[in-house]
Amino acid sequence: MIFHTFTEEKLRKFTERVFLTMGCQEAHAALAADVLLKSDLRGIDSHGVARLTGYVRLWEKKRINARPDIKIVHETATTATVDGDSGLGLVVAPFAMKIAIEKAKTYGSGWVAVKNSNHFGIAGYHALMAVEQDMIGISMTNASPLVAPTYSSERLLGTNPMCYAFPAGKYPPVIVDMATAAAANGKLEIAERANESIPGGWVQDKNGNPSTDPKELKKGGSLLPLGSDKDHGSHKGYGLGATVDIFSAVLSGANYGPWVPPFVAFLDPPTDPVGEGIGHFVGAMRVDGFRPKEDFKNHLDNWIERFKNSGTIEADKKVIIPGEPEYAFEIERKKNGIPLIDAVVNDLNALAEKMNIEKL
Amino acid sequence: MIFHTFTEEKLRKFTERVFLTMGCQEAHAALAADVLLKSDLRGIDSHGVARLTGYVRLWEKKRINARPDIKIVHETATTATVDGDSGLGLVVAPFAMKIAIEKAKTYGSGWVAVKNSNHFGIAGYHALMAVEQDMIGISMTNASPLVAPTYSSERLLGTNPMCYAFPAGKYPPVIVDMATAAAANGKLEIAERANESIPGGWVQDKNGNPSTDPKELKKGGSLLPLGSDKDHGSHKGYGLGATVDIFSAVLSGANYGPWVPPFVAFLDPPTDPVGEGIGHFVGAMRVDGFRPKEDFKNHLDNWIERFKNSGTIEADKKVIIPGEPEYAFEIERKKNGIPLIDAVVNDLNALAEKMNIEKL
Repeated sequence: MIFHTFTEEKLRKFTERVFLTMGCQEAHAALAADVLLKSDLRGIDSHGVARLTGYVRLWEKKRINARPDIKIVHETATTATVDGDSGLGLVVAPFAMKIAIEKAKTYGSGWVAVKNSNHFGIAGYHALMAVEQDMIGISMTNASPLVAPTYSSERLLGTNPMCYAFPAGKYPPVIVDMATAAAANGKLEIAERANESIPGGWVQDKNGNPSTDPKELKKGGSLLPLGSDKDHGSHKGYGLGATVDIFSAVLSGANYGPWVPPFVAFLDPPTDPVGEGIGHFVGAMRVDGFRPKEDFKNHLDNWIERFKNSGTIEADKKVIIPGEPEYAFEIERKKNGIPLIDAVVNDLNALAEKMNIEKL
Repeated sequence: MIFHTFTEEKLRKFTERVFLTMGCQEAHAALAADVLLKSDLRGIDSHGVARLTGYVRLWEKKRINARPDIKIVHETATTATVDGDSGLGLVVAPFAMKIAIEKAKTYGSGWVAVKNSNHFGIAGYHALMAVEQDMIGISMTNASPLVAPTYSSERLLGTNPMCYAFPAGKYPPVIVDMATAAAANGKLEIAERANESIPGGWVQDKNGNPSTDPKELKKGGSLLPLGSDKDHGSHKGYGLGATVDIFSAVLSGANYGPWVPPFVAFLDPPTDPVGEGIGHFVGAMRVDGFRPKEDFKNHLDNWIERFKNSGTIEADKKVIIPGEPEYAFEIERKKNGIPLIDAVVNDLNALAEKMNIEKL
C-alpha cells in the first residue's frame, strides 16, 4: 500500500475548501473540517478525510443541506431537542454539544437529543468539547442498519457508537469511544483487500449462519453485536446498540432501527420514514457538580497509574488506558503529518477536479 | 436440585424481619426487602434473598451500618453526591435515585453519585423508579474486583453493571441491565455444581492463560470483559467497566479498581483505601424534556414491535426485547410464587435460628 503524507494544515485547507464549495458558511466549513482532521490526527483514518467524498455525494443527492437552519425545537432547563435541518452532522452535533455545555455551566448538567442530522464523524470529538470545560462528555449516534440483534437474521441496528470522556490531571483524558458491534466495518474492508478471512464472531450470512468471509456484509449478511454470540453476551452488545438507538432517535424524533437512512448515496433512504434523518444524543456534566475538580483529577490520575502499571500477560503488551493510543497519534501526526493511502488521495483529487479547486 | 416455592408475601415478611433484627428502621427494612424481592420476582435469583445472609455477615463484621445517616455532601441544581454512611446499598441507592428524580422534575434531569455504600442489588430496581415517573432511568455500580482489563493478568474491575431503562406505552419498559463482563460469576457456579466445563472466553487463569475451568476464579484467575478477547472487542467491555468505575467512584469519592472492598465478609477490604466504601451512579431524565411523552412512548412501542417481529435465525428463538423476560417472570411469580433451591432455604433457616425469628 502506498502512503502520501500531508501536513495537517494542507489537509485542513483542502477540506475547508470542499465544504465552502458545497456552499457551507465559513464557520461551518471550518468546524466540519476540524472534526474530520481530528479523526485523522487521532489515527482513526476511517472517519477522517477519507469520508469527504461520501459527504459530497450525499449533498449532490440533496440529502445533506449545506445551509441548514439548526435550531432548538423543545427545551427545559437542562434538556433540549435540536432539529439539524438535514445539515452535516459534523456541524449539527457540535451545535448540540455547545447547548449541553451552556446548560451544564448554569445547572450542573445538560443533555441534547438531535434529529434530522447526518453522520457526525468521530463521537470522541463532541465528548472532548465538554472535557475542555472540565466536564464529563457523552456522545452517541445511530447509524445505517448493519447489525443483527441476538437471534435475528435482519440488520436492524447501526454500529451505534457511544463515547464517555473524562478529564484527567497530568494525563490525557480517559476517552471510551466504541462501536457497539463486535468489529467495525472497516476491519472487514481491510481483510477483503488483503484477501484474508476474518475471525468467527464478527459477521453472519443473510440466513444467520456464522461466517468468516469479509464480503458477507455485501452479500446481505450482518455484523454481530459486541459479545458475538449469546454465550459470550451478544445480548449485551445488542442492548447497548438499542440504548444508543433509543436515546438518539426515539427520544429526538429521528429515524431508528431499520429506518435509519444509509450513509452511502447509492442506497436510497426508506420510503416510509418514522422520523427525520439520523439522530444523536450528547451530554455534559460538570465534574465540580459532584466533587472539587482537583480531587476528581487527582483520583483519575491515580486510577490511570494503577491500571497502566498493572501486571500483564505478555511483556510487550501493556494495559492501555482508553484514549491513550489516539492521544499518542495526535502528537505524532501534528509533528510528522498525516499519511493517506493512494486510493484516498486519488479520490480527493478527482473531487478537486470536479469542484474545480486546487488538488492536494 | 430441589426447589421450594414461597409466596412473595411470605418471603417479603421474612426478609423485612431479618433487616429489622439487624436494627434497620422500619422504612429501610421494607425498602431493602422490596429491592431483594423485586430481583427474585424478576427471575434474577442470584441477586435476591439468596444474598440475604451475605448482607448479614457484612453487618456482623461492622462493614454495613444498619442505622446510616445518609446525606447529600455536594450539590448543584441537577447534580449531587451522597454519602451512604456505610448503609445497605439497597437503601442508599433508592435514596440517591429519589434525589435525581426530584431534580429532574424541576430541571429536566438529575444525576447523583454515591460513595460509602454497599452492594445495591439489581441495577434495574433503581432505574425503574425513574421509569415510573415517565423518565429515563440510569443506574450503575462498581463491585469487587474480578475482571482483568485487556492484556492484564490482574483483577482490577468488578462486573460493574450498567442499566438504562425507558418507559414504553402499551409494552413493558425497555430495560438494558447488564454486567460489563462476558459472563457473570453465577454462571461459573452453576457449571461448577454441574461438574461441567465453561465456554472459552469467560475466564483466564492467574497468569492470563485461557481456561474453561469454572473453578479458575477461585484459584486466582479473572473474569474477562464483554468481548472476551481483543479480536472480539474485549477492550470495549473493559472500557465500559472502566466507565462505570469512574462514574461510580472517581466521581463520588468511593473506592475504585482493585481497592473496591469485597462483597464477601471473609475477605477483608484493602488496608490502603483510596475512598469510602463502594460507589454508585444514578440518573433520571424527563422524557418530556425532549418531546411529548406520548410521542416517545408511541415510537418506542413501534420500535419494540419492529424488533419483536423481525426475521429470526431459528423458528423457536424470537428476538428478545431487553427487559421482556424479566417482566414475564414477574407476572408469573407474583401469581405462582418464588422458587428457591434447597441450599438457599437451609441457609435462610439457619439465619432465622441464629436471629431467633420465625423460619421460612
